[in-house]
Amino acid sequence: MIKPFQIASGPRVRFGSGEAAFVGEEAAALGMKHPMLLTDPGLSAAGVLTPIVEGLENTVPGHHLFEQAETNPSDESILRAREFYESNDCGGMVAVGGGSAIDTAKAMGILVTNGGKLSDYYGADKPANRVPPFITVPTTAGTGSEVTRASIVTDVVRQSKASIHSDTLYADVAVVDPSLLATLPRRFAAGALMDALTHAIESIGSLQSNPWTEALSMQAIALIGRNARAFVDNPTDLAAAGPIALAATLAGASFTNTGLGIVHGLTHPVFNFFGGHHGTTNGILLAAVMTFNLPAMRETYTRMAPLLAEPGGPGGSASAEAAIESVRAIAHDIGIPPSLSAIGVKEEYLDRMAIDAAKSATVQTNPLPADEKDMKKIYMELMG
Amino acid sequence: MIKPFQIASGPRVRFGSGEAAFVGEEAAALGMKHPMLLTDPGLSAAGVLTPIVEGLENTVPGHHLFEQAETNPSDESILRAREFYESNDCGGMVAVGGGSAIDTAKAMGILVTNGGKLSDYYGADKPANRVPPFITVPTTAGTGSEVTRASIVTDVVRQSKASIHSDTLYADVAVVDPSLLATLPRRFAAGALMDALTHAIESIGSLQSNPWTEALSMQAIALIGRNARAFVDNPTDLAAAGPIALAATLAGASFTNTGLGIVHGLTHPVFNFFGGHHGTTNGILLAAVMTFNLPAMRETYTRMAPLLAEPGGPGGSASAEAAIESVRAIAHDIGIPPSLSAIGVKEEYLDRMAIDAAKSATVQTNPLPADEKDMKKIYMELMG
Repeated sequence: MIKPFQIASGPRVRFGSGEAAFVGEEAAALGMKHPMLLTDPGLSAAGVLTPIVEGLENTVPGHHLFEQAETNPSDESILRAREFYESNDCGGMVAVGGGSAIDTAKAMGILVTNGGKLSDYYGADKPANRVPPFITVPTTAGTGSEVTRASIVTDVVRQSKASIHSDTLYADVAVVDPSLLATLPRRFAAGALMDALTHAIESIGSLQSNPWTEALSMQAIALIGRNARAFVDNPTDLAAAGPIALAATLAGASFTNTGLGIVHGLTHPVFNFFGGHHGTTNGILLAAVMTFNLPAMRETYTRMAPLLAEPGGPGGSASAEAAIESVRAIAHDIGIPPSLSAIGVKEEYLDRMAIDAAKSATVQTNPLPADEKDMKKIYMELMG
Repeated sequence: MIKPFQIASGPRVRFGSGEAAFVGEEAAALGMKHPMLLTDPGLSAAGVLTPIVEGLENTVPGHHLFEQAETNPSDESILRAREFYESNDCGGMVAVGGGSAIDTAKAMGILVTNGGKLSDYYGADKPANRVPPFITVPTTAGTGSEVTRASIVTDVVRQSKASIHSDTLYADVAVVDPSLLATLPRRFAAGALMDALTHAIESIGSLQSNPWTEALSMQAIALIGRNARAFVDNPTDLAAAGPIALAATLAGASFTNTGLGIVHGLTHPVFNFFGGHHGTTNGILLAAVMTFNLPAMRETYTRMAPLLAEPGGPGGSASAEAAIESVRAIAHDIGIPPSLSAIGVKEEYLDRMAIDAAKSATVQTNPLPADEKDMKKIYMELMG
């Protein structure tokens, strides 16, 4: 019997190469006045903002450009963004960038409409009011933040990542334009892609998975399986960038309804102790965690296997193990480092990291229970 | 390359056996006061309304029961519903029933918030304002109307069906509870199911189909393929009713973004000349239309074939033709009449019906062009 579940009413999604030119129209339709255009540093210089800025100039009263979104945004950086929004009397948010720019907008938006301080909203379903009118435009195909209900921020005092989960954080419209991925450096393209693949696979494994989210995740996995290598080789190739951009959004639309698994629980301590790129760390961990979860996932991984087999390759068996091997092969072929030690993780920290990982909320939705010993064992396997 | 597309922000979906008991909570969360509980005649006597009425009584100020939703609702019946809503000073709509009850609520809601007359809103994107707070609760697994942007009404003066399509018609929440299907008579269960299967297959074939909607449709097809016979045999069996209820909603969430194909174009003239049950007529037409569309759909039907093969059956080949044969076998096994003549269609009307069918908007999204001659030919094949 299918267990009860819910599918949120997420953002309207507008997908396609060139659709970024319609951000201005969407902003006008939402009644935005003086919206804050919130981006990562460097996107403007890379020309990524051009179609968006032109669109806004033609349709809404003067926008305000804020280019100081931080990678892994700190709570302090979000207060600076809020100060900018309020001192410029902004009316609406257009967030263009990776997960960090979009997460900055979400967290800032909650402060704008709810007041108080950020830590008031850590956890699930705390804010009472929706963020201001909100358009998301992803420029990496990874986090899915453009369609999720979460914002991940770094609490400077507590020195750890904290998350805000609420339906009040959903954007009104997500404009997903694969042509914006063209200037992604290879290693970010690879890491972001592994983040998206991790979302899709962990959402299917989640104890909250259901046939609706599984359909979205399986499509994301199929699109990634067929296009991962071609995309990382050449992010300007729209025949590959389109499917990858869509896969990241589909995976986001899936996991926002299900939660994730312990890949994410294991990745956050790596960041807290050693920094590094979130998606890349996920990419190092994913196959090992799949092996750990295999006893509960055999049937599902078997169905994934043909979707993940190398395009034009020998095919191979449709077994659960083949799915795991294919994930390992994709990570290898797109240049994900082979081990945690390769990104600077030191063995003497693993005990403390394992304790933190075992406390992660992602353990609650992982297909199998996982304690500190399990976490340590997975870390150790990847120190080779 | 993936063509540009959009996915609407549809209703939040709350799925599961027993979830109807939470309609009251959802109504309260939407701030409803004195909502209109709008249903088909007979549902109250069948006990279907009990959990919903109890929930509303515990959570919101007095609701008003309106049991006069018509099958294939006329514009006149919608005016009566509007009169009821306004004279009782209702604040919100809870529509419980098949597509007709839900479509009545949508059309009525547009009049309540936009004024004017119904024909002002025929076509696409005409109403400016959203319907009042709105919860949909389907009691047949067929139309998907609980999650779509369309209301189909029968214009008494023009003696034809007319449709209103707009994002302003989306419900806030769709509560999909498979236990509500338990009292469905066999022939309605069968017809509704074929309606859902038609939506899924026509959405995939639509020229507006995209990888997102295809994922939803393929999942709907898989759920129907595995559970159609068991569900119609016994709609109280939740192990089959759950998947079928979900399939109907998934198919709705798919086709609301893509439009349909000529099965629907051919069915409406049958209704206009001879009446009959919408889903049953779709069920008679579906395999013949798939054969007509086969030249454009070979690859897609081939992927559908394993999903549609009889559970526990010999399996058979994964060919496009096998998919069509499986659709024919499902229709046969669940008791759909074998021909149009079996439901009273007379050959002398087919020319006029074919002219009407060729004018249908569904021709615009059908995978192949279809003119009057094509329509006549399909009708003729089914007069056997």
